[in-house]
Amino acid sequence: MGFARKEYEFLSEIGLSSSNLGCYVNGSWKGSGPVVSTVNPANNQKIAEVTEASLQDYEEGMQACNEAAKIWMQIPAPKRGEIVRQIGDALRTKLHQLGRLVSLEMGKILPEGIGEVQEIIDMCDFAVGLSRQLNGSVIPSERPNHMMLEMWNPLGIVGVITAFNFPCAVLGWNACIALVCGNCVVWKGAPTTPLITIAMTKLVAGVLEKNNLPGAIFTSFCGGAEIGEAIAKDKRVPLVSFTGSSKVGLKVQQTVNERFGKCLLELSGNNAIIVMDDADIQLAVRSVLFAAVGTAGQRCTTCRRLLLHESIYERVLDQLLEVYKQVKIGDPLEKGNLLGPLHTSTSRKNFEKGIEIIKSQGGKILTGGGLMESEGNFVQPTIVEISPTADVVKEELFAPVLYVMKFKTLKEAIEINNSVPQGLSSSIFTRKPEVIFKWIGPQGSDCGIVNVNIPTNGAEIGGAFGGEKATGGGREAGSDSWKQYMRRSTCTINYGSELPLAQGINFG
Amino acid sequence: MGFARKEYEFLSEIGLSSSNLGCYVNGSWKGSGPVVSTVNPANNQKIAEVTEASLQDYEEGMQACNEAAKIWMQIPAPKRGEIVRQIGDALRTKLHQLGRLVSLEMGKILPEGIGEVQEIIDMCDFAVGLSRQLNGSVIPSERPNHMMLEMWNPLGIVGVITAFNFPCAVLGWNACIALVCGNCVVWKGAPTTPLITIAMTKLVAGVLEKNNLPGAIFTSFCGGAEIGEAIAKDKRVPLVSFTGSSKVGLKVQQTVNERFGKCLLELSGNNAIIVMDDADIQLAVRSVLFAAVGTAGQRCTTCRRLLLHESIYERVLDQLLEVYKQVKIGDPLEKGNLLGPLHTSTSRKNFEKGIEIIKSQGGKILTGGGLMESEGNFVQPTIVEISPTADVVKEELFAPVLYVMKFKTLKEAIEINNSVPQGLSSSIFTRKPEVIFKWIGPQGSDCGIVNVNIPTNGAEIGGAFGGEKATGGGREAGSDSWKQYMRRSTCTINYGSELPLAQGINFG
Amino acid sequence: MGFARKEYEFLSEIGLSSSNLGCYVNGSWKGSGPVVSTVNPANNQKIAEVTEASLQDYEEGMQACNEAAKIWMQIPAPKRGEIVRQIGDALRTKLHQLGRLVSLEMGKILPEGIGEVQEIIDMCDFAVGLSRQLNGSVIPSERPNHMMLEMWNPLGIVGVITAFNFPCAVLGWNACIALVCGNCVVWKGAPTTPLITIAMTKLVAGVLEKNNLPGAIFTSFCGGAEIGEAIAKDKRVPLVSFTGSSKVGLKVQQTVNERFGKCLLELSGNNAIIVMDDADIQLAVRSVLFAAVGTAGQRCTTCRRLLLHESIYERVLDQLLEVYKQVKIGDPLEKGNLLGPLHTSTSRKNFEKGIEIIKSQGGKILTGGGLMESEGNFVQPTIVEISPTADVVKEELFAPVLYVMKFKTLKEAIEINNSVPQGLSSSIFTRKPEVIFKWIGPQGSDCGIVNVNIPTNGAEIGGAFGGEKATGGGREAGSDSWKQYMRRSTCTINYGSELPLAQGINFG
Amino acid sequence: MGFARKEYEFLSEIGLSSSNLGCYVNGSWKGSGPVVSTVNPANNQKIAEVTEASLQDYEEGMQACNEAAKIWMQIPAPKRGEIVRQIGDALRTKLHQLGRLVSLEMGKILPEGIGEVQEIIDMCDFAVGLSRQLNGSVIPSERPNHMMLEMWNPLGIVGVITAFNFPCAVLGWNACIALVCGNCVVWKGAPTTPLITIAMTKLVAGVLEKNNLPGAIFTSFCGGAEIGEAIAKDKRVPLVSFTGSSKVGLKVQQTVNERFGKCLLELSGNNAIIVMDDADIQLAVRSVLFAAVGTAGQRCTTCRRLLLHESIYERVLDQLLEVYKQVKIGDPLEKGNLLGPLHTSTSRKNFEKGIEIIKSQGGKILTGGGLMESEGNFVQPTIVEISPTADVVKEELFAPVLYVMKFKTLKEAIEINNSVPQGLSSSIFTRKPEVIFKWIGPQGSDCGIVNVNIPTNGAEIGGAFGGEKATGGGREAGSDSWKQYMRRSTCTINYGSELPLAQGINFG
Repeated sequence: MGFARKEYEFLSEIGLSSSNLGCYVNGSWKGSGPVVSTVNPANNQKIAEVTEASLQDYEEGMQACNEAAKIWMQIPAPKRGEIVRQIGDALRTKLHQLGRLVSLEMGKILPEGIGEVQEIIDMCDFAVGLSRQLNGSVIPSERPNHMMLEMWNPLGIVGVITAFNFPCAVLGWNACIALVCGNCVVWKGAPTTPLITIAMTKLVAGVLEKNNLPGAIFTSFCGGAEIGEAIAKDKRVPLVSFTGSSKVGLKVQQTVNERFGKCLLELSGNNAIIVMDDADIQLAVRSVLFAAVGTAGQRCTTCRRLLLHESIYERVLDQLLEVYKQVKIGDPLEKGNLLGPLHTSTSRKNFEKGIEIIKSQGGKILTGGGLMESEGNFVQPTIVEISPTADVVKEELFAPVLYVMKFKTLKEAIEINNSVPQGLSSSIFTRKPEVIFKWIGPQGSDCGIVNVNIPTNGAEIGGAFGGEKATGGGREAGSDSWKQYMRRSTCTINYGSELPLAQGINFG
Repeated sequence: MGFARKEYEFLSEIGLSSSNLGCYVNGSWKGSGPVVSTVNPANNQKIAEVTEASLQDYEEGMQACNEAAKIWMQIPAPKRGEIVRQIGDALRTKLHQLGRLVSLEMGKILPEGIGEVQEIIDMCDFAVGLSRQLNGSVIPSERPNHMMLEMWNPLGIVGVITAFNFPCAVLGWNACIALVCGNCVVWKGAPTTPLITIAMTKLVAGVLEKNNLPGAIFTSFCGGAEIGEAIAKDKRVPLVSFTGSSKVGLKVQQTVNERFGKCLLELSGNNAIIVMDDADIQLAVRSVLFAAVGTAGQRCTTCRRLLLHESIYERVLDQLLEVYKQVKIGDPLEKGNLLGPLHTSTSRKNFEKGIEIIKSQGGKILTGGGLMESEGNFVQPTIVEISPTADVVKEELFAPVLYVMKFKTLKEAIEINNSVPQGLSSSIFTRKPEVIFKWIGPQGSDCGIVNVNIPTNGAEIGGAFGGEKATGGGREAGSDSWKQYMRRSTCTINYGSELPLAQGINFG
Repeated sequence: MGFARKEYEFLSEIGLSSSNLGCYVNGSWKGSGPVVSTVNPANNQKIAEVTEASLQDYEEGMQACNEAAKIWMQIPAPKRGEIVRQIGDALRTKLHQLGRLVSLEMGKILPEGIGEVQEIIDMCDFAVGLSRQLNGSVIPSERPNHMMLEMWNPLGIVGVITAFNFPCAVLGWNACIALVCGNCVVWKGAPTTPLITIAMTKLVAGVLEKNNLPGAIFTSFCGGAEIGEAIAKDKRVPLVSFTGSSKVGLKVQQTVNERFGKCLLELSGNNAIIVMDDADIQLAVRSVLFAAVGTAGQRCTTCRRLLLHESIYERVLDQLLEVYKQVKIGDPLEKGNLLGPLHTSTSRKNFEKGIEIIKSQGGKILTGGGLMESEGNFVQPTIVEISPTADVVKEELFAPVLYVMKFKTLKEAIEINNSVPQGLSSSIFTRKPEVIFKWIGPQGSDCGIVNVNIPTNGAEIGGAFGGEKATGGGREAGSDSWKQYMRRSTCTINYGSELPLAQGINFG
Repeated sequence: MGFARKEYEFLSEIGLSSSNLGCYVNGSWKGSGPVVSTVNPANNQKIAEVTEASLQDYEEGMQACNEAAKIWMQIPAPKRGEIVRQIGDALRTKLHQLGRLVSLEMGKILPEGIGEVQEIIDMCDFAVGLSRQLNGSVIPSERPNHMMLEMWNPLGIVGVITAFNFPCAVLGWNACIALVCGNCVVWKGAPTTPLITIAMTKLVAGVLEKNNLPGAIFTSFCGGAEIGEAIAKDKRVPLVSFTGSSKVGLKVQQTVNERFGKCLLELSGNNAIIVMDDADIQLAVRSVLFAAVGTAGQRCTTCRRLLLHESIYERVLDQLLEVYKQVKIGDPLEKGNLLGPLHTSTSRKNFEKGIEIIKSQGGKILTGGGLMESEGNFVQPTIVEISPTADVVKEELFAPVLYVMKFKTLKEAIEINNSVPQGLSSSIFTRKPEVIFKWIGPQGSDCGIVNVNIPTNGAEIGGAFGGEKATGGGREAGSDSWKQYMRRSTCTINYGSELPLAQGINFG
């Protein structure tokens, strides 16, 4: 079916139409749940319709997925890597269309939309290499004629529940690794970005089909909390990777733990940038702009708190207010715009409410603070002067609102940085080695991401991505994150005919 | 104060008397909680009295511990290793007394008591080496003039809650690693083994004092559920390592998660030994005996299920019944005895109840099944023929009761092995490579410990110890278990003057 | 220029013509050395002409390469990985033509020719992943305010001298890793396979040009010993990777060592297959066939010695003689042929001489032993019964000649396996775990490749490839082979203001 | 026999007398070579006599060692670790006597003598941990029913040839690792430090005997070049670890390579300290003093070249000349002395000759340059102003002579640093992150040790110790140095009944 607007026609190049089935179940597209509309946050007009998953769809999908898991886990890892490599190549051919869709449906500016898809491509390349390096260990045994091995085997099925702000990259982080590790993936995308969920799935499905593999290796559902809960409760899913708020994440974790499953949580952030008196101010200001305004403040790594040394407080603030003025706001698909809309009209309302609370807690609006006149969900990029101890500062307001505060010493700055429940990202601007190494050391930032002279956001895939405390503790992408997607076993093989016991025990 | 019985006098060599304070708080011994008696499970007579911790003691201890953490985490890791090395040497000098105490208060036979202490000594040696190998990574950055590091920093304080069955080794597994990783340790031992808690703590305290370090680095409490809950709820304790039942473990986990802390869980096991038709029967029988009867069936790795190939079912069973007859039961301190008492009179009652349930679910007692006439908590080593699907087989009865069952194929045996909620240990006896490698592969045992031709129990410290599913997923001792005791951060340092973004994004 | 024969016309698709310049120097093709003809070993007729490198060409190339090294080493590793990924993709588009050329110019059968190119493609994929994992370490320092790092930096230029038998795969093993590690590559291919050298280089050059990178990053020469010596002596080349005979390798090593450079040597093999009495005979026979006859016995991993347990000696031999009879010999490009020609007429003469020596040392020809009537360099696949102590058995005759010998015990078989100067590959056929684990343990095979129930040849790229003793000790492809292509530095950074010394020394 | 001087009597506490047998062969002390005297470099008077090894002694020792190797390599690594732990404990009990002997016989000041022994103790502790971590890998195979392992097995025997300047620490670095790796050790100490060789050996021998292990596991010879050559030529010694001059090292390497053995070389250094304009001058001056004067300039890591930024040239030099004046010269056993004698009278003559050459090449003596009036081998600590291009600057004069030179830019300083044949150690003093990270990066120092704000000497054992270029490329002590002491094998085990080939090749 044709699209209502001409500018949506590129969507047909990635398998979408004005009305779409939202479940990829056992290698087929279907959907027997509610029909929902997906809207463009820049104007709140409908893009297309999607039929979401019902619980019956879910059950059908999971049964097939469970069967497919037995096949997939037996395929040698390097062969699984070859499939992921092909997924990367398929994404390369549709990079621009997918990036455009991300921008259209989620609302982030086009370079960020394309960057998000590029990140999955990078993950595919990385995972291919990993497919020959999911190494276990041969560990020296203390007993003669014994061999000790640490083996890593697939879990079976990995559930991935993603959020609207990175509607496909987070799937990529998880799925690329989960797949080479030998797991089937069951994915529930955000309810407000179903087209991205469908388009991504179609690309993956195409590769599976081309290789005569069961489509159920990758099972995908558009849907809401009901499907999310089903995954959390499902004993067939040993690992649930969840991205979202700390509140929901905690609930998911308890549900999953009760059935003795595992969670990989990427929850909220409350990320600070510290600018020391010796910092490169220009570098700092540019970084804060990208970190606070990028993705309209809706990254989990968005900078929400700016800690300025008292000696450069005015100078940095002046420069920052200056660049904030120049931020072009508007259609994220239009070149030159730096700030698109918030994702939903609810987000816009939350922004309004947030500003009220900020004011009531003593926050002083230095710039912004208001909504933009528009059909879309646009708001002004906002800077607030506020005390680090205000309650509102401890929470994550998912919008381009930056709290600015002053400090005197490094110790004080680190204490403020660490004083929030969340522990995702943090950054310091300085040119002193002793500050750098203290910042990344035992008494420095307590976050999972601890940067120096770069923004809080924009992680590379080679490192492990994730945070501590209320951020949930999961790690995605690089380093040894893959271990979370496998089960470890310590195997001791006696190939002799004696039975020596560990710790030299004599029994009987 | 002198001991009631002469045979307890060796306890004075490890700092114990007939009446003891049960809290090591801020480097001093105190106790303002209830006074309890500790009894010898072989005769249920009092050994000595202990004053347990009150919540005030706890709070005082934790405040000091929290201060000590700031000091300890700044001491270079190899220097922390040197302290742990001295702890190992201190244990060496008291190996026999401590082993004897373990045997006396817990009830396991003396070689096992000494073996348990030896395991801590081994852990100390291992941790010393580790203190120069807690390595982070330098990861290639995709951006020029950027350096990416993965850093591992101390958590601060690690809470360790241990169970009666390994009253000191489990502390050793955790504390040796936690300490070299830069954490203070707060320990609550089992309520029924306070003397071991006190004696172990005295040895550690002695080393700290000798090195002019704050005693609060190692904070220790005798006490019950109240203190355990205090640890679980305490925001100052980022990691709680808990050993105990799945039920309590789940509750601890939820409490800890709610405050965004982490758990390292070592919960129940339900461990099977599979004997294939080609097995070395003699080796298998000896292994089953050690695995099922050792520590009176009170190891988390105790073999509880014996899966015999139908073709050798009778033969193995006959031999096993024969060796069961020869098991000498009695005072664990007496040489030659293989089976000591259960730890408490409650355990003995649970055994009785368990046997009733077994019978009611179709279990056939092949040997044992009864209590021993004694002042102590002795029971008969028991073999039961039962269906793998009986409900009682899915649970962990902490006693020397072995369920025997028959299978036809490897696939069936693995399915039975994996059919219980727990996933700690498992073992197969075979001489076929294809069976060995399938058993340790993706479609083999789903446990954390997957052995071949050795018992389910008796792990070496070089490997990671722990299990999947209801066993809780934690890993202790060797491999990269140390990572659980540290927080990871991904650090990207820009040392240039440009601001390139990851994924090649252009912003502004 | 057109080709003399129509069947050579596919060569124009990979940039070749009837007359070719043999040096890729500073991004341009040139050649001022001798003009040589390359011939088809199946008929000894000319395929095309190539102008080899002069020493002037070499010097010009190396100067440019040395300049390019300064640029290439500064490009972030993941960006270098992207270049290698593109090389892999370029190879994919020309897989069949390149494979065909390998078959044509080297003489191996087409499936092996294509397999060789596929191996480079696999290496590219592997190297891309590696480009984000060339990890250094952060090592705990024993000194406060000190940070210890292990850094891995590029060497600068890696020289690669390859042999005729794997005219491009060995380049691939080295170049893929060397390039992501940040090194320029200078390659001298075998003098008898210049077309492969040129075609491979053209593909790589195309990718460099497309990315606006200096062509000199990959510098390539057709030529003989003179150019090889120039590389060995060149101080600008910190690492020389050499594949060839032990004799020449030793000389290269001495030359390189004298200027304090490093070598990565892949020299001769003398690889044995042991068949135990419990082996799967059919599997063993098929493996021996592939290992002894494949690539006409010209792999470094070719099986040259077959050790049969006395109890199955006759049975295996009978079956082997039977399958040898069925080996189809002929044009390697023709489907169905298993045995192509030897690479040169000299090789054929060496085969003749070798057979004479074998006979003179008591060898009994069981099958083969003669030349084939042909314009090409075909010889008969040969099996010889001979004593393990015969001198000729200690040497590598690069032809399809298999020495068969008898043994009684595993110990004896391992002794024979280890009794030759070379230590590349080895394999045992057995179904007993105790044999398998002894074979791969401290008193088993002393080779770099130690297989079980597969041939001596056909390594996967995920493992490290190479051998011990006279094989030279180098390791290529997977595992941590990349470390050989980088220089390691141990960096200790003091960011405090004190000067504590290691080992607690007090100075002054 | 009693000692000539009372102050030598402590030597009897470590098993020495006035006349000693210099070979520990097959668990017994003997010696049939020349009798030599060992002298005190502080007064050139005899300490004691030693009977060196003859070639017959050598052969007898090696035969026993070769037999012992078969036993030792089969003892599980953690049990070998326990032996090394006991060696560490034995050293602890004799720390002061051994340190005193090092000071007496070698000539370094007492704190350095004790520090050297402490380093072996640290190595023992480290090696104990390592004994449970000599891990191989389980690598994913691309073939179904195949398992790929990377195994590390002992080499058999490791030859260790050490130099006078670290007469026991270098043995410790090598032997601790070699032993836990499963190798026997054959040690030849420096001809001028036989008492240390004997005393160290006695301690090790005592531990072996106590554990009922063959003494031949540790075989030790006092002797000169003849014994060194015997080791280099001996096919029973797969690895020779040699510490000494580049010239001799090169010769050893060629001898060892000719028999296809391996070398681990620690050869000469020519180590520079760079002081940038922003450096902490006081820290730099103290570091240069320790690095240039410590061990009388006879460490391989001694600072020989001081590169000063022109802007701080005079200031640093003035301060340095000031502290040089205060250096107390005298008996190394006397408290407060910082500079002991050179090791031999020959060294003293070489110093004299060196000063002449320096002058003839334009060097200007700023302080020192002369011999001290004394019976011993004392010389003045010397600072020379000289051009970085002078020939003499490229060589290692093993004495306390420091060349000072001026530079303008970091680039220039790094070029000078890298302009010598040697590549052992280097250090920069700066407080700028961009300088630090460039210095340790691809275009920084080309040495194996690259320090920041600490001296060139005084390495910690947790890192890898060694250097590039003429320094020989070996790495000792920490990181993965242990791999050099083991042989690696890549093992692929087929446990299925099919024969799939790598790279998807179809054969036959």
